[in-house]
Amino acid sequence: MQDHAALPQGFRASGLYAGIKKKGRGSDLGLLVADEPTPAAAVFTNNVLVGAHVGICREHLARSGGLVRAVVVNSGCANCATGEEGLANARRTAEATAELLGCAPEQVLPMSTGAIGAQLPIERILDALPELVRSASSGGVHAFADAILTTDTRRKVRMQELVAHGSARAHVTGIAKGAGMVHPDMATMLSFLLTDAGLGDDPTSLLHALAARTYHRLTIDGDTSPNDTVLLWSSRPSKAPAPDALRPALERVAADLCRAIARDGEGATRLVTVEVRGARNEDEAARVGRVVATSPLTKTAIAGRDPNWGRILSAAGRAGIPFDAASARVWVGPSTVYDLGQPFPEREAEASRHLRDEEEVTIGIDLGVGDAGANVWTCDLTADYVRINADYRT
Amino acid sequence: MQDHAALPQGFRASGLYAGIKKKGRGSDLGLLVADEPTPAAAVFTNNVLVGAHVGICREHLARSGGLVRAVVVNSGCANCATGEEGLANARRTAEATAELLGCAPEQVLPMSTGAIGAQLPIERILDALPELVRSASSGGVHAFADAILTTDTRRKVRMQELVAHGSARAHVTGIAKGAGMVHPDMATMLSFLLTDAGLGDDPTSLLHALAARTYHRLTIDGDTSPNDTVLLWSSRPSKAPAPDALRPALERVAADLCRAIARDGEGATRLVTVEVRGARNEDEAARVGRVVATSPLTKTAIAGRDPNWGRILSAAGRAGIPFDAASARVWVGPSTVYDLGQPFPEREAEASRHLRDEEEVTIGIDLGVGDAGANVWTCDLTADYVRINADYRT
Repeated sequence: MQDHAALPQGFRASGLYAGIKKKGRGSDLGLLVADEPTPAAAVFTNNVLVGAHVGICREHLARSGGLVRAVVVNSGCANCATGEEGLANARRTAEATAELLGCAPEQVLPMSTGAIGAQLPIERILDALPELVRSASSGGVHAFADAILTTDTRRKVRMQELVAHGSARAHVTGIAKGAGMVHPDMATMLSFLLTDAGLGDDPTSLLHALAARTYHRLTIDGDTSPNDTVLLWSSRPSKAPAPDALRPALERVAADLCRAIARDGEGATRLVTVEVRGARNEDEAARVGRVVATSPLTKTAIAGRDPNWGRILSAAGRAGIPFDAASARVWVGPSTVYDLGQPFPEREAEASRHLRDEEEVTIGIDLGVGDAGANVWTCDLTADYVRINADYRT
Repeated sequence: MQDHAALPQGFRASGLYAGIKKKGRGSDLGLLVADEPTPAAAVFTNNVLVGAHVGICREHLARSGGLVRAVVVNSGCANCATGEEGLANARRTAEATAELLGCAPEQVLPMSTGAIGAQLPIERILDALPELVRSASSGGVHAFADAILTTDTRRKVRMQELVAHGSARAHVTGIAKGAGMVHPDMATMLSFLLTDAGLGDDPTSLLHALAARTYHRLTIDGDTSPNDTVLLWSSRPSKAPAPDALRPALERVAADLCRAIARDGEGATRLVTVEVRGARNEDEAARVGRVVATSPLTKTAIAGRDPNWGRILSAAGRAGIPFDAASARVWVGPSTVYDLGQPFPEREAEASRHLRDEEEVTIGIDLGVGDAGANVWTCDLTADYVRINADYRT
């Protein structure tokens, strides 16, 4: 899967600099448009503190029956903890976009990402919208993908082809921003999954199942943020049947975006896949994986290229899932470093080489209590992470 | 409360170098003895992975009816993930100590702290026990407190006098080790609260209530460890009534030990007290406080002397406790930096000075939904924390 992605049929996109970020920090206003209002579903942050857009998106999706014509996204300002004025600004953005497109305001979803606590420069946004709408094109995916970045060091776009019906082809294009769940400026994860395949009767359930296996298995440092939003959106009419190949294609794209986010984590030098096996069920496997992937001890060990199985075992032990250390196995890359109560110090050199030589590394634990497994993605925790976050405003 | 502490009446202590740690790293075997078997209660780690001593302590306390004659503690080896051999070694340590003291083995509690996965050098321990028992004295509190340290940079002893009955005086002496919940070598928190006041009918409930307000409100990085143990132990006979002044004296000592542990956190430059106010009840206040105190964003901001209220508000928002950001207040030291939906950038310079000039700093949030509050202790997260933990074994 390469970055030379295009939009699925029926979508256009654009991006430009509206003056929300400081000059020289890149574009900051992006638009996705469908030719018609078409079905979409969204999942949002579970933080009690939410950006202004979260409530408005929920409201718009409810009022429009889940039919979306456009998504307008700004970076450089989270519009979070901004009270009534923040809500009014998000509404005005949606209304002005709707007027330019000739659709109902509730068919437009506004979204924001960036620093918390500042009001949107609404006049600059309103001034920029006509050009943003005018320039939307089927070739605009990179312009959009760039406009939603904040502290990301890389654009994140992935595309997957699938066989939709008979020999007809369809596509999934995924676009994300995020250098972790948490940013120095509270910018956070936004992700868009666009397709020209149908979504079937229940796009919301489809997205929730997908998120459980992908976005909810990604952590940089365990903090959630106020603006996290994932949108699944098809250009096909409502209730168009979903091909069997859609779910695996969506999962492939979403997982690849998650891995791209983890790899771009602040200060990260390694993409880490935490493999949990031998659990009683997938849910418990994912719970253990999330705790291991959040453990500062495990993540600093990886930064130090240290296959420290004791830290992995101990982190797994605090997930609240019963298992017996005497029946567990721990591996780092290709090397089993602990098995059935027995450490294997002689294999640690090989495990260290894996951590040192690979950019994408694997650590794993088999709990020995069942047959289920799950993977969770994270990154290592380096002194640079601390430096970036300590020095941000000083 | 100074460090020139003594033991309460009826206790003796000792400490020496038995050869468990590498030479030059300090003493590694400590003993606490009561003149008679007397009442004690313990709380242990809730990690699924537990050191060998945890199960044996539970078993001994059950078999002895909660009467303890001695506690023998080694540092330099956690005796964790060591299987049957580890359990046998912990039992032999208790049995040999009991024989030297002339008591039942279940009246001796063995405890270990240090690196995970290595077996105890049991012959060295057995060789050292006679001298350890012989040298126990009423003046041995510092010898014991030193022998239980691992990566701590400071000995942790606190003492408090209380009026026991009429004008009779009693004492609480607290001893702890721990430079955080988590150590590079999985060494972790041990704490002993000794008193010559009675503990009343139910020492276990007394200790649990105490731990809820003190030890469970301390976090360095959110990881729990396999060996955490807190022991409350009186030299008075079973069922001796507990004076009213005991609980506040215990809480004072325990809170001070927690603060000492947070201040000695790995890489820490600041002791941080997180004050949560305006919660519906104390439990919810403590939950919010623990999440804020675990947030890497909040802790790196303090390392950077940055009064970043957005990070505090957002961390509080992910605790699962409902509140409205528009009714919340956030302060840093003496300065309110956010109130009722409004940031106060002009007060941030003063807040920064607090973070820069004080070694013990305060951050706080009023949730605006009730009258309850709680404090949680932690430390800042510095690049040194990462360096210590990344470079430990390499």
